[in-house]
Order: sequence, then C-alpha cells, then structure tokens
Amino acid sequence: MKRIGILTSGGDAPGMNAAIRAVAKTAIHHGLEVVGIRYGFAGLVAGDFIPLTAEDVDHKISQGGTFLYSARYPEFAQEDVQKKGAEQLRKHGIDAVIVIGGDGSYHGALALTRLGINSVGLPGTIDNDIPYTEYTIGFDSACRTAMDAIDKIRDTASSHHRVFIVNVMGRECGDIAMRVGVASGADAIVIPERSYDVKKIAETLKQGFADGKDHGLVVLAEGVMDAEDFKNELLKYGDFDARANVLGHMQRGGSPTVEDRVNATKMGNYAVNLLLDGKGGLAVGMENGKPNTHDILDLFDGKHEGDYSLLDVNEEMTKN
Amino acid sequence: MKRIGILTSGGDAPGMNAAIRAVAKTAIHHGLEVVGIRYGFAGLVAGDFIPLTAEDVDHKISQGGTFLYSARYPEFAQEDVQKKGAEQLRKHGIDAVIVIGGDGSYHGALALTRLGINSVGLPGTIDNDIPYTEYTIGFDSACRTAMDAIDKIRDTASSHHRVFIVNVMGRECGDIAMRVGVASGADAIVIPERSYDVKKIAETLKQGFADGKDHGLVVLAEGVMDAEDFKNELLKYGDFDARANVLGHMQRGGSPTVEDRVNATKMGNYAVNLLLDGKGGLAVGMENGKPNTHDILDLFDGKHEGDYSLLDVNEEMTKN
Amino acid sequence: MKRIGILTSGGDAPGMNAAIRAVAKTAIHHGLEVVGIRYGFAGLVAGDFIPLTAEDVDHKISQGGTFLYSARYPEFAQEDVQKKGAEQLRKHGIDAVIVIGGDGSYHGALALTRLGINSVGLPGTIDNDIPYTEYTIGFDSACRTAMDAIDKIRDTASSHHRVFIVNVMGRECGDIAMRVGVASGADAIVIPERSYDVKKIAETLKQGFADGKDHGLVVLAEGVMDAEDFKNELLKYGDFDARANVLGHMQRGGSPTVEDRVNATKMGNYAVNLLLDGKGGLAVGMENGKPNTHDILDLFDGKHEGDYSLLDVNEEMTKN
Amino acid sequence: MKRIGILTSGGDAPGMNAAIRAVAKTAIHHGLEVVGIRYGFAGLVAGDFIPLTAEDVDHKISQGGTFLYSARYPEFAQEDVQKKGAEQLRKHGIDAVIVIGGDGSYHGALALTRLGINSVGLPGTIDNDIPYTEYTIGFDSACRTAMDAIDKIRDTASSHHRVFIVNVMGRECGDIAMRVGVASGADAIVIPERSYDVKKIAETLKQGFADGKDHGLVVLAEGVMDAEDFKNELLKYGDFDARANVLGHMQRGGSPTVEDRVNATKMGNYAVNLLLDGKGGLAVGMENGKPNTHDILDLFDGKHEGDYSLLDVNEEMTKN
Repeated sequence: MKRIGILTSGGDAPGMNAAIRAVAKTAIHHGLEVVGIRYGFAGLVAGDFIPLTAEDVDHKISQGGTFLYSARYPEFAQEDVQKKGAEQLRKHGIDAVIVIGGDGSYHGALALTRLGINSVGLPGTIDNDIPYTEYTIGFDSACRTAMDAIDKIRDTASSHHRVFIVNVMGRECGDIAMRVGVASGADAIVIPERSYDVKKIAETLKQGFADGKDHGLVVLAEGVMDAEDFKNELLKYGDFDARANVLGHMQRGGSPTVEDRVNATKMGNYAVNLLLDGKGGLAVGMENGKPNTHDILDLFDGKHEGDYSLLDVNEEMTKN
Repeated sequence: MKRIGILTSGGDAPGMNAAIRAVAKTAIHHGLEVVGIRYGFAGLVAGDFIPLTAEDVDHKISQGGTFLYSARYPEFAQEDVQKKGAEQLRKHGIDAVIVIGGDGSYHGALALTRLGINSVGLPGTIDNDIPYTEYTIGFDSACRTAMDAIDKIRDTASSHHRVFIVNVMGRECGDIAMRVGVASGADAIVIPERSYDVKKIAETLKQGFADGKDHGLVVLAEGVMDAEDFKNELLKYGDFDARANVLGHMQRGGSPTVEDRVNATKMGNYAVNLLLDGKGGLAVGMENGKPNTHDILDLFDGKHEGDYSLLDVNEEMTKN
Repeated sequence: MKRIGILTSGGDAPGMNAAIRAVAKTAIHHGLEVVGIRYGFAGLVAGDFIPLTAEDVDHKISQGGTFLYSARYPEFAQEDVQKKGAEQLRKHGIDAVIVIGGDGSYHGALALTRLGINSVGLPGTIDNDIPYTEYTIGFDSACRTAMDAIDKIRDTASSHHRVFIVNVMGRECGDIAMRVGVASGADAIVIPERSYDVKKIAETLKQGFADGKDHGLVVLAEGVMDAEDFKNELLKYGDFDARANVLGHMQRGGSPTVEDRVNATKMGNYAVNLLLDGKGGLAVGMENGKPNTHDILDLFDGKHEGDYSLLDVNEEMTKN
Repeated sequence: MKRIGILTSGGDAPGMNAAIRAVAKTAIHHGLEVVGIRYGFAGLVAGDFIPLTAEDVDHKISQGGTFLYSARYPEFAQEDVQKKGAEQLRKHGIDAVIVIGGDGSYHGALALTRLGINSVGLPGTIDNDIPYTEYTIGFDSACRTAMDAIDKIRDTASSHHRVFIVNVMGRECGDIAMRVGVASGADAIVIPERSYDVKKIAETLKQGFADGKDHGLVVLAEGVMDAEDFKNELLKYGDFDARANVLGHMQRGGSPTVEDRVNATKMGNYAVNLLLDGKGGLAVGMENGKPNTHDILDLFDGKHEGDYSLLDVNEEMTKN
C-alpha cells in the first residue's frame, strides 16, 4: 500500500476535519501518500483528487465543516457507478480509502472493498444514530451548540416568565434532544422514539410557575413534530406565555469540542492502522472510550440504542 | 433624595443587569438606598419592591436577561394607573426612579416625572432603535450572538456549497442585520428601511459560485419578510441550493459583551448623577463614547438614524 | 430518611453546581428535604446550613464554581472534629450526606459513614485523578477552556512563526495535558507520569518549520516543570522563537460543558438513590457512560490510570 | 493605479484578516489587482508577494491572527532598505500599499510614500495606543478574551472567597485594563498612566469581604509591575487569600468581535478609496464611528488619550 484516499460524505459535522487531519498525519508517519477526494463519492467518480501534506492539515483540527466538501450522490448505489469510482482510484494509484460520514458512507465503503479497494468507514454525523458506536463525530459539538443557545434563551425566558419549546436536530433519533435536555435542565424532553403526554407536560410547567420557577423549557427533537404545533398543543392545557424556537443549521457547524476532536483523532488514526493491516469493509466506532471495529455488513442489521436512561433521570428530578 | 428605585421594562436585553448594578453601586456610593422594582411598571403599581445592596448585584454584571424581571403593561398609559404608581413610590419613600427599556419605558418615566417623581430613562433594547443615542444596551451582544451563529452556519454552507438566508432580529430597524451582515461577510443585507432587488441578489450569488466561492449568505432583518418566502423568491432567479434559517430568541440572551457592559455601566452611573442633580424627564444616551441626555419629549419626535454607510461599504466589496 | 445534606469540598470544578442541583431535585422528587452545607467540611462542623428548594437550584446547572462555596479544612482529619460534624448533622436532623470533591472529600465521607451518617462521595475535580472513574466532574470543562485558549494562542503563534509552550493544570496527573494536547494538535505533550526528551522535541519543532509548518506547540502539565524553564531547555537545541504561557486558574471556572453537566446530573441523581437504599461509604464514578460505585476504602488503594494511548496516537501523527 | 499591495506589521491582532479582506474586495470591486505581501516589511524587501483574489479572502473575516504573517524588521528604518522595498514594489508593478499594524507600520508607510509609492496606514494593535483614533483593530477582541477569562476566574475566586490579581496586556497603555476592569466589575484597576495606592486597594478588598462580597478582583495592566509582586505588596495590608494570574498571549488571538470586524472592514474599504483618490502618507482612524484620516507625520507628535473617565466611574461604584 502506497497511497490512500480520504473523503467525507453526507451531512457535514464538526470534527470531520480533525479526522481527515488524523488520517493524513498518521498515514504520512507510516510513509504513505495521502489524497483528499473532494465532494464525497461524486468527486471520487469524477476524479476530483488533491494531494494532502501534513502541513495542509495543520490548522484544520479546530475548523468546523469539511474542507474536502461533501455532496449528495445517490448514484453511487448503482454498481456501474461504483466501478467507475474504483477505476478512478486505480488510475490514481490509490490503494485504499477512508470514508467519514453517515449511513450512506458505509454502503459506499463496502462497495469499494468488494471491488478490491479496501475501505473503512468512520461515523461522522451529528445525530449519533450509527449502531455499534457510543459516539459519532460531531455529536458532542452539536449538543454544545444547542445547549449554548438554550442557555441564552433561558435568560429571556426567565426575564419574562415564559415557556420555550426548543426544536433541536434529530429526525429519527432523540440523542441530541436527550443530552441537551438534561444539560439544559429541561422540564420535559420529547423524542421520536418515545410517546409523550402533552397534558402532563403542561401540568409540570404550570406547577413550576406555581412553585416559583421563573421559566419553562421543553426540548423537542425535530422528528416529533413542528415546534409551533407542539406549542399550540401545549397551550390547550395551560395559559402560560409560550414561544417556539427552531435552532436549525448552526447545530451542524462551529469549531469541534474537545471530545469531538479527540475521538475523531483516535478513530482516524485507528482507521489508517486497519488499512495498514490489509483490512477493509470495516466500520470504526468508539466503545468504552476506545476505537473498535465491526463488519459494515453487521451495521446494516444493527440498531443504534440511545441512552434512554437520560429520560428517566430527567423525570426523577421533577416534582411529581 | 434618600431612596431611588430601578426597574426594567419591555423586552429584556443583555447588559440590563450591568446597568442595574451600576445604578445600585453608584447610588450606594453616594449614600442612597436602592430599591429594585420587579416586573417593570406592573410591579411598580403593585408595589413589588425589593431592597438592593451592593453585594446583591455583585455577580450580575455578567448575566444576561434582567434579574428584576420585565413585563408588558400597557395599562400604564392610563393616568389613574400612573398615579397609583406614584403613590406606591411615595408610600415606600422612593424619591426618584431609573427606567431601563425601550420606547414604552420613556413614556412611563416621563409620566412619573410629571407626577413629581424625577425619573430618567436608559436605552435598553437589542434593536438599537432609540433616537439620539448611537447605542442601546444589548445591541452589541445581540450582534455577537447572531454573528457567532452565522459563523457556524457558514461551516455547513461551505461544506455543501449552499446559500443561507439568515433571519436576524429587527422588525422596523435594520441595525442588527447591517452590522451582522458586514461582520459575517454577507453577499447581501436586506433591511426594512431600504428597497432590495431579489434578482440582483440572486445574480451576485450565482456569480460567487461561478468565481469559486463555496457558499452564499444573505442576512435578512425579520421585518422585511419571512425567510422561507425570501428563499423562494430567490430561487426563482437561481438554481443553487438554498436554506432559510431563523435565529430567533437566543439573540436576546447571553452574557453581555464588553461594549454592552461598559456602556451600561457608564449610563447607569451617569443616570444616578442626574437624579442627584435634581433632574428628571431625561433620556440618557451615548454620543461619541460618552453619556449624554435629551429631554424625553424630544425623543418622541426624534427618529433613529441607522448607520446606512454599512450597506454602501458592503456593496463596494462585491464584484459588480 | 427525611433530610439529606450536600456539600462541596476541595478545589471548585465546573459541574459541581449541576451535581448539587441533581441531588436536590432528585431528593425532593422522593419527598426528602435538602440542606446545603456551605464551605465544605468547615461549614459542616460550624453548622452553616441552608435549606434548598427545587427553585433555588433551577438556574445553577449552567454556572461554574460552587454556590455552596468550598474551603480547605484539614482539621476534619481529626476524630473529635469529625464527631462534632456528625453531631451538627444530627442536631439538624440530617440523616445522610453527599460530598462532591476530590481525594479529601472521600476521607470525610467515610468518616461520617463510620459515625452513623451514611455518606456518598462524588468525584468533583478538574484533574481527573480519581481511581475507578473514567471521568471526574469538571475535567471536560477544564479541557475545553484550555483548548479554547490554545486555539487563540495558535493564531498568534502562526502569525509570527513561533513555538508556544503552554502550561495546563495537572500537578501529578497528565490527563488534561494529554486530552488538550491531542485536541489542539500539539507537536509534543509532556506529562509528569512519563519521561520526555527535550532534544527530540526540539528536533520535531525544527523539522516542522523546515517542512512549512507555521507554528509549534508543546502542551506541558504544570507538574513537570516551570514553563519558562522548559522553554529555556528547549532553546538549547533549537533557535526558533519560543514563548511560555501559563493558562492558570481560568481552567477551574466557566459554565460547564454538556459532558460535565450530564455526568454530574447522572451521578448526583444516582447518589441520592444509593442513600435511599440505605447505603453509605461509597464513591460514585462513571464507567462506560453509566454511574457505578466502589467502596471508598478501595479508592484509597486504587490508582487512577490515565488514557496514555493518547500519547501514542499523538506520536504516531508526527513525521518521525 | 492598477495594482495595490497589502501587508501586516508588528504584533498580530484579531481583525487584521478582516481588514485585508476588505481591502482586497474593495480594490477588486474597483478593478484593481491585489497583492498580498507576506511577513510585513521584511517580505516587502524580499519580494514575498502573492496574488489575492476575492475568493482567497472569503473565509478570512472570522479568523484571528494574520494570514499574511507578520515579522519584526527594524532594518526598515534604514533608507537604503526602504529604497530596496520601493524597488521591489515597482518591479512587481505595485503602485500603492496599505499597511496594517502599530507604530512602526506608520513609519514604513510614510517612507514608501516619500519614495513615490502612496501608502496608507491602518491601526492594527490590541493595545489601542495609536493617536487620533478612538479604536484600533483588535482592541475589542482582546478585551473580550480577557473579560471571558476573568468571568471564569471569578467563579473560582467566589467559590473560595479569594482575591485575584489579573494581569492583562498593556505595557504603556491602560486601555485594556480599564475597559476590562469596568466590564468585569473589578474592585480596582491599576494602569501605568496613573498612580495607585496599594493600601487603599487592600482596604477596599477587606471592606468587600466584611460586607459579604465573596471575592475580590484587581485588574492590573502588565506595564505597571509583575502580578506576583503586586500580590505580595497587597498582602502587606490584608490577610485575605490572594492569587496572581497572567492572561498572556491568548489575548492576541481568537476570532474577532463584531466591533473589530466592522471597523476593520470600514477602515480597509476607506483606505482603498484614499489610494484611488491619489492620496498617501495618511493614517486612517475611527472618529465617532466613522473612518477619518490624519497625516502620518501628525501621528508622531500626537498622543493617544485613554478614556480615563472609566477609572472615575469605577471609583464611584465603590463604597468609599
């Protein structure tokens, strides 16, 4: 193995650049050449390749987004397109590939491996919805950004004795909502994986004001329902002042947290070692603070399990 | 004069607490007693008063919101309600009042002055829409929060070569949009006080991508139109990927910036000195970095002038 | 059990307030009364107790430091002083105590348990130097603060092609240095638990500049040696421009991170449940993301094991 | 005029990149070519020039430091070296130059102007010590960083009832100390331009604790004396617990504030217009929120006047 490629795929996430950096620096340490593939699998097929030196990635560790860019490219599900990709890699002497991204990235990495190019996938998505890893790159940063925003919103909620329903990211996965909800001291956390009782939430909020609380907070995962709709539901059972707030895309950006940088670095470093060992078709994850691997095939059958104990802990801190 | 009251009114703004602190500490320095009036003019009429010591306000300088709370209270426009307020103040031996807030606050302060309680108004609103002051308490913090969010949004915009239309606060006043737009390197800034040309904006964005720019940014004051609607207008003239984002209430909160703390402190300190001089019916503002005063009556006729040179500067940095 | 006490001991750490909040809210949920013991064990002996309601702790989750204050109190090692403490608790009807702090806290908690007051210890220290827990309250926040500062320092290092030796906290434990070093992309990480080779570090830095790197960074745990001395050692082997920087006490403060708030909440909640189960003399820790317990006695024989794999990963990203 | 150069000189400051961006974008708007001169006047003499497109500077507005690098180069005081610089510029067809930096930058800009290359200076230094401008690029960001650090230090100061003496930047100019001191609620602010009374400061701190304050804070400009020495002086008159903290180089870095970005943009834009008007030998500054100019020659006789009213305001908020 002389030359490896690296690409980012799917929605960007803080820490992707830190992972690219770790891959590049580790590979260079071992005497490999590193090629950045721009615009994900689209760029792979188009041959949009740039060489990466250790100096090119020096300042990337602290930057959000992905400097290799990302792009949607459903065409890569087709076998002939995959073959074109493998040809491009061979043409440029790229022996192996590391893919950072979400669900779709793993399909691509597996396809390349089957076509003879060992490829390894890293979990890069703010949603934390990948099986067999306790942690995806970007998750902690997204939680940080959401929590910081809610800390600000609480200032104005308290000044006016208001309830805020804050919509955080998570279409099918409530991990951001649960972690941010607990970290923000939410009165209620509402996620797609669990049913909820609007009336009971309204009662909790009313009780809070009655007891002298100066604000109310509901953290709502976007996959549940529209925040404005939820507010209207809530107001059927309580006459408090309420506002809905959608945090939106800023949750995807920003300089990555310590956790995201460290884990991205560990996994990027580990992935290169897997390739050096001649392995492919593997998904890297974090387990008890250490990188681990699973066959990508297993991932497709696996199911991410959120830390639902957070809901219980939060419930056990209310009055009723 | 032995005892002064202080209240916050209207929407909360970062730096209000710093102003309360400055008022309290300055008044205590001069041997006065200080009374915090909670919930704005509503609390004034209800007699919701708490004593404030220098130690009570020690940690408030860094906190967003207003620890004295605020409340809407249109009833204070009625003369009999104003009289009840003045009676409450007399009953509690409060000789003068400092009011921090927006437009409505000045009406209240003037009413109290006419009823024999010297009162002074401080500009506390993130919108910066008060005449005769170059600066309102909270404006810089709101701009900071919006800019920080846009810096994050730019990460994801760039990773995906997207255009973002970011809605910032400002119903009738484009000051936040202009300042944040320039500070964020926006391709276009759209405010209520000026007409705009959607087609031209779309051309600029298209040209940007054609020249190698990896993202586009439009900063839109909320008073202009809905961000989603603006996006749809824009997409009539360009086929780029675009998203709308409403930053929302977090712009009202957060620890105040240096500028907001310093100016809030200067104006709070100055306001106490005005009362010590037996003055009332005055609005404090900042002019060339120094506190100044105008008759509140003049404010009602005055008109805030935004720094529209920012639009020209921003235009002069585009290519066409 | 009707009433429990809570105190913070030793150096303050971000997340202590979040833990106090979780303890109070969980205890109140279970119908208990909660007493805040101010100034650590000193206040316990002096009887400096305040009642805590759910509303008292509402806003504490986002605040650094400890609102119950902390104090050094070596006198609590004496048996007669411990007895006085236990008497105070009994006098005030306090049946059990939760102690948040470092090493000394556990000795105190054990002493109280032996005197019949079930007590449980929570790991509250930025240093992460407690055995049998992968995580102490405040560690992630301290790393965040150090990393943010180094991100700023890198701006100026790069502008002037300088090497910075940044001293971070950690007298006997290199955990902050290792995690921050990796997260900051340090050229070298120097900790008390490992030997180091100044000459080799100087060679790495010189090689970096020769290859086009625009700055150099050494992260140094304070326990190793003075940063200025280290710089002078380094300059014996290289003629680059170098500066030493001691980050200092700010690493102890600031609003806690998501991780610190979530873990403090989980552990605080868990500790109350231990007391409800009639247990005492236990140390709560985190293991694989979940709260666990060990006998405090075991802690005294245990030894914290840092994640030294971080050093290897960092080494494996250099060129030699 | 067809082509202009831009360089940064002296210590780096947040907002320099925003100024470079504004210069480049404005010049390109007017059909000019832009050349980045790396490493300040050293690079000018060495001919270290790079072309700058609008896209090259797109993301620079939010980055600290100077991507054109800076360097000390006292040799540029010599006339023959200046002539070499002018020759390099002519050789590369550079008709005019904009210099961003501190005191030394102006001397260089004047020398170039006298040699026939119109040059304009922009105030880029965190110290705010340039005459005829109310504001230098980087000053607000440095104050922000220092204030944020002190907010954190206050958490730990309060938790332990300690006094902190915090050393902020400013060798001969107390502007950072004054602004940060007021914004941080310091008990005392000590600057090189004013005498101070250690005993009185100690009395204020003791009185604070006696009245129930839970911490003490002295903000000390580095030019006054060593923070550790100041602490020892202070402890002669008080028996409180005190610590010294030097904030150091991080004050130079970090993403620039709104204020710094906006003013850097205004001044950069304005400077290009001066060159377009055929002017040179001028220093751009900010006066009442608008860019203005003075002859560089006047600057050398001028004297920066700090806003010493901040000291009076701070004094007037103490009890005595």
